[in-house]
Parts: sequence; C-alpha cells; structure tokens
Amino acid sequence: MKAAIIAIGDELLIGQVINSNAAWLSSQLFKIGISVEKHITVPDVEKDIINEFRNAYKKFVITIVTGGLGPTHDDITKICIAKFFKSNLVLNKKVLKDVKNIFRRRKIVMPENNISQALLPGISIPLNNRMGTAPGILIEKNHRVFIALPGVPYEMKDICEKKVFPYLKKKFKTPLNKKILLQKTLHTIGISESLLAQKIGNIDEITQKGPDYEVKLAFLPSNFEVRLRITIESKTSKKASTLLKRTVLKLKNRAGKYIYSYNESPIEKETGDILAKKELKLSVAESCTGGLIASKITDVSGSSKYFLEGIVSYSDKSKIKLLGVKGSTLKTYGAVSKQTAIEMAEGIRKKSGADIGVSTTGIAGPTGAVPKKPVGLVWIGYSDANKTFAKEFVFTKYRLRNKEMASKMALEIIRRKLLDYD
Amino acid sequence: MKAAIIAIGDELLIGQVINSNAAWLSSQLFKIGISVEKHITVPDVEKDIINEFRNAYKKFVITIVTGGLGPTHDDITKICIAKFFKSNLVLNKKVLKDVKNIFRRRKIVMPENNISQALLPGISIPLNNRMGTAPGILIEKNHRVFIALPGVPYEMKDICEKKVFPYLKKKFKTPLNKKILLQKTLHTIGISESLLAQKIGNIDEITQKGPDYEVKLAFLPSNFEVRLRITIESKTSKKASTLLKRTVLKLKNRAGKYIYSYNESPIEKETGDILAKKELKLSVAESCTGGLIASKITDVSGSSKYFLEGIVSYSDKSKIKLLGVKGSTLKTYGAVSKQTAIEMAEGIRKKSGADIGVSTTGIAGPTGAVPKKPVGLVWIGYSDANKTFAKEFVFTKYRLRNKEMASKMALEIIRRKLLDYD
Repeated sequence: MKAAIIAIGDELLIGQVINSNAAWLSSQLFKIGISVEKHITVPDVEKDIINEFRNAYKKFVITIVTGGLGPTHDDITKICIAKFFKSNLVLNKKVLKDVKNIFRRRKIVMPENNISQALLPGISIPLNNRMGTAPGILIEKNHRVFIALPGVPYEMKDICEKKVFPYLKKKFKTPLNKKILLQKTLHTIGISESLLAQKIGNIDEITQKGPDYEVKLAFLPSNFEVRLRITIESKTSKKASTLLKRTVLKLKNRAGKYIYSYNESPIEKETGDILAKKELKLSVAESCTGGLIASKITDVSGSSKYFLEGIVSYSDKSKIKLLGVKGSTLKTYGAVSKQTAIEMAEGIRKKSGADIGVSTTGIAGPTGAVPKKPVGLVWIGYSDANKTFAKEFVFTKYRLRNKEMASKMALEIIRRKLLDYD
Repeated sequence: MKAAIIAIGDELLIGQVINSNAAWLSSQLFKIGISVEKHITVPDVEKDIINEFRNAYKKFVITIVTGGLGPTHDDITKICIAKFFKSNLVLNKKVLKDVKNIFRRRKIVMPENNISQALLPGISIPLNNRMGTAPGILIEKNHRVFIALPGVPYEMKDICEKKVFPYLKKKFKTPLNKKILLQKTLHTIGISESLLAQKIGNIDEITQKGPDYEVKLAFLPSNFEVRLRITIESKTSKKASTLLKRTVLKLKNRAGKYIYSYNESPIEKETGDILAKKELKLSVAESCTGGLIASKITDVSGSSKYFLEGIVSYSDKSKIKLLGVKGSTLKTYGAVSKQTAIEMAEGIRKKSGADIGVSTTGIAGPTGAVPKKPVGLVWIGYSDANKTFAKEFVFTKYRLRNKEMASKMALEIIRRKLLDYD
C-alpha cells in the first residue's frame, strides 16, 4: 500500500522547524507494510494545500497530513479539508467534552477559542488526542484514506499509536510481500569509525549477496557514536532472521566489547540495567557535565533502584565541601586534573555510600582554556571499592557537544568496568 | 525569488534519516531573500525524480536537489539530471584530479568507482566539494537555476557556504521591486496557545495588510512553549523594521510577562542573564528532574558566575542528609508534596549559601502514581531571603517530557520572580 505525507506550515519552509514527523511516520508505516513514496511540505496557503491534497489523493491510497490543526487563526488545515471534501465543519460534542476535560485535568480554565477544536468536517471521524486539544481527523472515501494529525510530535505520535496504526493495520492486512526486509542497528561509543572497521576486519566476510538474499552493513557515525546498521533482504522471513542472527554474531565476535546496545536503547539504559542486575549503587559528581550524567541516568524509569545521588559541584568551594576534594589538590593540579577527578569520584562514592562513584571535570568551553589545558579537555574519574582511576579525553571546541560526549563516555566507562572489559 | 528543495533517497522515505538538510537550506536561503515554497522528498526512482524536476522547474526559479550524488549503484541523481536536461555525462578532468587528491591526502588507494564522481552533465558547472568526493552541480538555463548537492549534511553545507550562496546572492541582486521580508520569533513558556491568544486579544489589531506591506502573526506551540512568529513584508527595509518594532511592542504590551525571549535564546540563558545582572547566586535541588535543570543552566557559557551547586536527591535519605528536609515532613506529606518542595528549596539555598534555591519533586512516570498523585504531578519550590513557596503542576504521562517541562517551568518561575511578575 502506498502513502504520501504532507506537512503543512511556514515554520518548516523557513527552516525554523525540522520535519521530524515525516521521518517518524515513514519508519512506523514501513514496519506495518505501508510504503511512503513522497514527502511534501507546503506553506499555510489554502490554494497550495488543497492543490497538494488533490495530487496526493489522485496518486496514493493513503494520505497523511500533519500540522495546522491548532486553535489559532493561522491553522487552516481543517478549512482546507472541509473545502477539498466539500463537507462543512460541524461541532462534535464528544470532542468538545474531551477538550474540556483536558483543561479540567490541568486545572486551567478553558479559553473560549478552544471550542473551535471541536469543529470537524462532517464527513470525518475524530481521532481522540490524549495529549492535546486538537483531535486527529480520519476520512474514508472512494477506497482512499485521508488522515490529518496535529503537528506537535508527541500528540501526533500518540494518536498514531493509539488510533491510526491499529486502524491501518486492520484495513490493509499484510499483503504478500515480495521481499522481506530486516534491519538492525548496533551501537558503539568511544571508538572511531576507522578503528571499528579495523576491529571488524574484512567486510566481505560480513556482507553477502546471493541470488535471493543480500546482507549489507553500513557504518553510521554521529555524535561520538558509531552505529552499525545491518540490512537483510531475503525471500522468506525465516532465512532473513537466520542471516541477521549470523551477522550480529559475527560482529559481536569481532567488536563485541564496543557494542553497548543491540536494541536501540541508550547507554544510560544499558549501564543502568547492568547496575540493577549486579545490585550496585551509583553516585555521580559532575563539574563540566553540569548535571547531564545524572539527567541521563534518571531518564530511565526505575533508575532510583541503582542511582543514589548526584552532585553538581560547579565551584572549587563545593568540590571541597560536598566531595571532600583537598584544597591542596586544587591548588597544585587545578580543578581540571587527573588528581581532582580521582578525589571527586572517590569523594562522592564514600560520602553517598555508593558502590561506584563517577566524576567529570573539564573545560567545556568556549572559554576557559589555559596552556596545556585546551577547550574540550575532560578528565573522567571512576572509583569503586577495589579500583580508582581517571581517564583523559580531548573532545571538541563546542560546549554542548563536550557535555554530551563526556556524559556518554562516563556511562560507557562504567559499563566496560562492570563487564571487566577494561 | 521562489525556490523548491527536492530531497532524493529511500533512506528518507523509510524514515531512517531525518531531512534536516531541507530545514537548514530553507533557513539560510530565507536570510538571503530567497523564499522556499515547497519541500519534496522522492525515492531513488528515475521516473519519480525526473517528474519532480519537471514540476519544480516549471514553477520555481530556483530548484535545489540534495542526495543521490555518491559513487554507488543507488545514486542516480546525475543520470536523472542528464536525462532531464538532455545533456550527456562527460568526464571532467579537474574534478577527477580533486577526487584523486582527496584519497591521496587520506593515504587511501582510490577505489575505481570514484572515477564516476568526475562524470558530470556537459551542460553543468561543477561546484567543488572540499569535504568529500561528490562535487555539486550547477545548471543555468532559461532564467532558471538548478543546483544538485550531496546529501551528507556537512558536505552540502560547505558547498553552499563557499559556492552556492555567494552565487545566488550575486545573481539575484535586490531587484527594484523586491519585497523586504523580516521575521522575529518571541518565546513563551507555561502558557497555553489559546490563553496566550486570549491575552493578545483581537488579532486584527496585530496583523495588517496594506497595498505594499503585510504583518502576519503565527502561534507555534511545541514542547511546553508557544512561540509567536511575526512576519513582515514591505517595500522598504525602513518600513519593515518600523512595522516589526511596532508589532513587537504591541505583543509586549499585551503578553509581555509571558515572553521570555525576543532573540531565540533559551530560557536558561534568559534567566541566567537576569541572575548575572542582579549578581544573585542560584542553587538547585532536583528530584524528579534528575539533574536536568542543572544541566540546562550549565549549558550556558559563563553560568559559573551565578550557579553555585546542584544536588540530585533521588532518595528520601539524600533529601534529609543533603538538603535538611525533615523526616517528619516526608512521612506526613510524602516526598512529592508542597511541604517537601518548600523544604528542599529552602534547604539547598541555606546549605549552599545561594540567594535563590529552587527544587523539584514529582512523579516523572510511567510508574509511581498513587491515589491523588498522578504521573505528571510536579511540585516546584522556590526560596529566597524574603519568600518561599511551591507551585503545583500536572504535566503529562511521559517521563522525559515531564522532566523537560518541569525544568523549563522552574527556570521560568525564577525569571518571573526576578522580574516581579508573580
């Protein structure tokens, strides 16, 4: 089944917002056997919008529209739909009740203009929006499906998962696919693309091509990670999954210690799972990462099982007072030094009563560099009952990237240590 | 001058890659007076690609294509261009030399298939790619400009900055009756789109349309923020900037206290600037936000001037030990309560010696809800020498969104308090 996605909004065409909705929708639709063959973005202009509705409706069985469903004057998607389908906007009492309930839950008085959220083309079925006030819209006509969704990503996603995908799955039951396509992405951190390639060795022993199957491998470097994307094409799903398993195993044998995730979960989840399994408690003392490690750790539901506390010690004073770093250490070696990182990691471990303490201290930039200590220099400290050490890194010139890289690397250092890799 | 952007590649249509190129190109073109009016993404299919070339070429003076210029079998953009313009692919010796040089520099033997990178439509001018092997392509014909660029973002951007934008700026020098386009986006937090619209009141007093000018206003909600985007079109830049100033002032008069930024800077920067100006020190005690407030604050270079320390107290024990929250408070009211939020804010302020203490405690979810305390419930505490209070919020069912919203709101509460708005 073929689909088109139309995004509506000037903000996309002036580049203020990146159209991540189209990518997400496409990947999800791909999984249920619907092939998106076109993305279109148009401005908040009635003529242009209706024109693209017409083009898509002509060519594709499924058209999904995002954006322009809000309550203000520049949201004209519903008006365009009403005109295109020649179906008047009608007040939907059920939707009005839902909208009113949202404001009640949030303990806010509903502004009058939200009533317009309950006006829908008579021909349409509303798709309940649990996250916001604009319901989605579903229209079935002439064996075509036309769906309009709010542009706010989490509202759009929730409506899709709860309403749109179940509907589409039921309506367009799995056709007999010509080809089976399987993909899996393995994640690594803290190893360069070329070194990872070297560890993996001869790529021809991984990739394969036969008369009715193919195994492909792509190296995808981004943001301090290198992902390995395996793509399998085959005639049967059994063959595809055998090939996938075999390829994953080969990569694991060659570079397993660098692969932190086989299932797209982030490093904080993987490291957290190991801590939970080993029943170990972690505390962190952050200087240059400024709370980002703690924030990543607590992004994981259930992290309170293994995460005790975090200290963001942004001043020398707080390093001394909260972590027990020696004044003489700071004076002799400076705050950004191996010795300080070690005392911070040991200090947070002992003071908090954790099994493992981790620390960061560095020059996040863009200012703060001194001779022999460039922007991007970060010391990451690690301490457990048996071993305390610190490792030096030189990341980039960019503050946010340095925080991100140092945080991920700190979590990776814990992971490797817990698994006795280093 | 009007432009369309066509992205080519199956990876975009299966959602494996987000089309960030289109947004970047649009925002950069906007700055040099070129208005992008359509984004299109098509698969690696010759018929579809040429069809979109034709549509865009018909309607737009400028067409920019990204992707499909690589050396492998699935890169067919050049073939499509050659067919569309009826111009054969010809070996360009200068380009071949450039490509060979890249491999020499990298100390790699050039794979044979890279020779194809030097095959270009005879009608085209190559645009040197300093970052990779695929040159960009420029074709001028019938007062139309057609440009093809590699899909790798940093290669695309470098060619644009070095070649494409200077060329376009020179070619489309301000014509006499050119329109001046000005935009400005104001940011608000913690007020719904509809309530903001209500505060702003009659939209017709803001938006205007005259014979030679137009003032537009768009409401852009996303991630707990609502942005107000003002767009001015006018004949002269003087008139445009007068209209812009006047519109900003009107919005400021009507909803000024909700607008935290007039220059695209994030809340942590705005609140930080006020703290710096007032020479006040801030410390934070986080439970449900898990370090995210501290991380946001320290995203700002220079934040060490006003940020003293952060405590992530994820357990009752650490709330008592590090912040001085009373055991009896936790027992009577629970960790997620007004009283605990207040004692946390007061505790961190006094223990750290800061002027202002801020705290969060809540149920981030997805688990942890109890009767009368749903997922998404967050208390944000504030304490300075004169006043201590806590505010209740009910955000969403989603952990990461709750962390994000609570963190932004905490920073907004500080901002409003510092400016005596609440």
